[in-house]
Amino acid sequence: MTTQQTPAADWLQSVRWNSLEDRLDLLDQRLLPDEIVYLELTTAKQVWDAIKQLAVRGAPAIGIAAAFGVYLGVRSFDGSREALLAEVGRQCDYLATSRPTAVNLFWALDRMRARAEALLGASGEGVETEAAKRALLDEAAAIQAEDEETCRLIGEHALELFEDGMGVLTHCNAGGLATARYGTALAPMYLAKEKGIALKVFADETRPVLQGARLTAFELQQAGVDVTLICDNMAGAVMAKGWVQAVIVGTDRVAANGDVANKIGTYSVAVLAKAHGIPFYVACPMSTIDLNTPSGADIPIEERHEDEITQGFGKRTAPVGVKVYNPAFDVTPNEYVTAIITEKGVVRAPYGENLKKLFT
Amino acid sequence: MTTQQTPAADWLQSVRWNSLEDRLDLLDQRLLPDEIVYLELTTAKQVWDAIKQLAVRGAPAIGIAAAFGVYLGVRSFDGSREALLAEVGRQCDYLATSRPTAVNLFWALDRMRARAEALLGASGEGVETEAAKRALLDEAAAIQAEDEETCRLIGEHALELFEDGMGVLTHCNAGGLATARYGTALAPMYLAKEKGIALKVFADETRPVLQGARLTAFELQQAGVDVTLICDNMAGAVMAKGWVQAVIVGTDRVAANGDVANKIGTYSVAVLAKAHGIPFYVACPMSTIDLNTPSGADIPIEERHEDEITQGFGKRTAPVGVKVYNPAFDVTPNEYVTAIITEKGVVRAPYGENLKKLFT
Repeated sequence: MTTQQTPAADWLQSVRWNSLEDRLDLLDQRLLPDEIVYLELTTAKQVWDAIKQLAVRGAPAIGIAAAFGVYLGVRSFDGSREALLAEVGRQCDYLATSRPTAVNLFWALDRMRARAEALLGASGEGVETEAAKRALLDEAAAIQAEDEETCRLIGEHALELFEDGMGVLTHCNAGGLATARYGTALAPMYLAKEKGIALKVFADETRPVLQGARLTAFELQQAGVDVTLICDNMAGAVMAKGWVQAVIVGTDRVAANGDVANKIGTYSVAVLAKAHGIPFYVACPMSTIDLNTPSGADIPIEERHEDEITQGFGKRTAPVGVKVYNPAFDVTPNEYVTAIITEKGVVRAPYGENLKKLFT
Repeated sequence: MTTQQTPAADWLQSVRWNSLEDRLDLLDQRLLPDEIVYLELTTAKQVWDAIKQLAVRGAPAIGIAAAFGVYLGVRSFDGSREALLAEVGRQCDYLATSRPTAVNLFWALDRMRARAEALLGASGEGVETEAAKRALLDEAAAIQAEDEETCRLIGEHALELFEDGMGVLTHCNAGGLATARYGTALAPMYLAKEKGIALKVFADETRPVLQGARLTAFELQQAGVDVTLICDNMAGAVMAKGWVQAVIVGTDRVAANGDVANKIGTYSVAVLAKAHGIPFYVACPMSTIDLNTPSGADIPIEERHEDEITQGFGKRTAPVGVKVYNPAFDVTPNEYVTAIITEKGVVRAPYGENLKKLFT
């Protein structure tokens, strides 16, 4: 089921449909940055396992993988059009249980369900089962292509804010590995590379789970982007040296007032940026903006296990029994956010007003 | 030469003279926080090895250990008063090679040399060799006692700035392990504990070498102080929650204008403290204030090996070949420093003027 290989594309694709072999090749992100290994998935069960066991991470990437999983789950199905439609539903229900809190996963599966209904339902297009299966595969590919386009547009808009030679600091990983391609916060760096614009990227390692060291530094290095890894507590010193002209991060949720929840440490970076007169940008798809959440105070902050801090490197580095505070996220109030960059453009304060406009 | 045991004192002493056995018991700080092991040293060579191999760390602690090492180096010496004086010189020269950059080490050895000269020199006190040896042991003990008193005074002055129930954040380790007792930044926490004043301490883990997790959290936990370990990037979030009413750190050097060099990440903490209206205190003995260094710009910043970041705890956590920036220290400009606390009292801005006054 697994093989080690060089990626077929000239960029590192976390979810890759292999049409020659009619299978899903999935980059095993658990092994990064040590090894580049693609899992070769031919059944929905294998996709379910890969999501469950965190081989694939990043909300868009999970949704895309699951969509292909639906196709893998029904491609050998032999039965009537009605039975196939029912089978699609069963596969979607099954795949939805792989990560019960992943909103993007449900969104992608609902879209596959709706497509199947349109193809095979009573008031649908009335196509034959084999054609319907191919159309479901096309739908999964479309979800992936649309995500890539969304990220590319975010990158284009963000890149308008950057200039050749600038130093750009990022925190955690909002990169191509988490999406179809380009990522959100990292999208302008990839596009800059394509266009021959030189950016000097500083990647916070992002304790406790080190997504910056393991993923951001890795994928930018793979893409030939100039990236320097630092510990989180070095961000201020690097800014004081005048090496950083912009900060850009992703986000898990933007509240209606422009408050931004993102990986723990983002708030500290935002405060440091403001103190040094450096713009602080947040990059995200429209789907991350939640107008039903009034402010950051309404976003629950998950606390994670103390082991991530006390023995995060496999070795115990703190005394047994010590008290630990380990929040997974923090909230950056809107007054620290210079702009929010979506596929529909760049939004600035007043966010309450201007975010609402985006959706009209 | 080694034994695992419970400390004899009710506090964890890094350098402990064992008068019953006429030997030096030295806490092996390399094994913290996993194991509390005391090396039992009976020769100057063993003390030299312990310093060289970093079993003892912290400038005052190193100086104290070396002073006892001088006594161990001559206690069995059999010869004339002149020959003993020469032997003290040889032992001091030898111990000085254990860590060639440690100013405090040289200071302690010079003091032992001067004491020997006063006891045994041509114009000296003229005591007999055995009495001189005992007097050298007393001198080492005096160096230790004076360091303890210096730290206690720093703690008393610092504690005047704190109140019962306050949250106090510290970075790196400026604690009792590095000194005879109490430490500098941690001194008020120990004294508060003695006086029944409750402080809630937050300890930054302090990447890359994790002195906060391995040492500060450990020694405060051992002492029964309420300590919570956080990752460096959580300091801002903890301040935003209103959990911190003061920051206190140690320092490697204070410049004449009040700029402060300390462990990397200190500057970020200072900026965050200012943004949250939290006082930022620096605790240090007078010997750390260097009026010959005009400002922080004149303090050279050591850069350390990238392995500390890419594979700090035995496991690789960043891609091979990635660029790394790993400064050991940063400089906090004086405008972020609310006060500098020494054994002679609390100094506030204007530092250029007020630090000079301390020495007059």
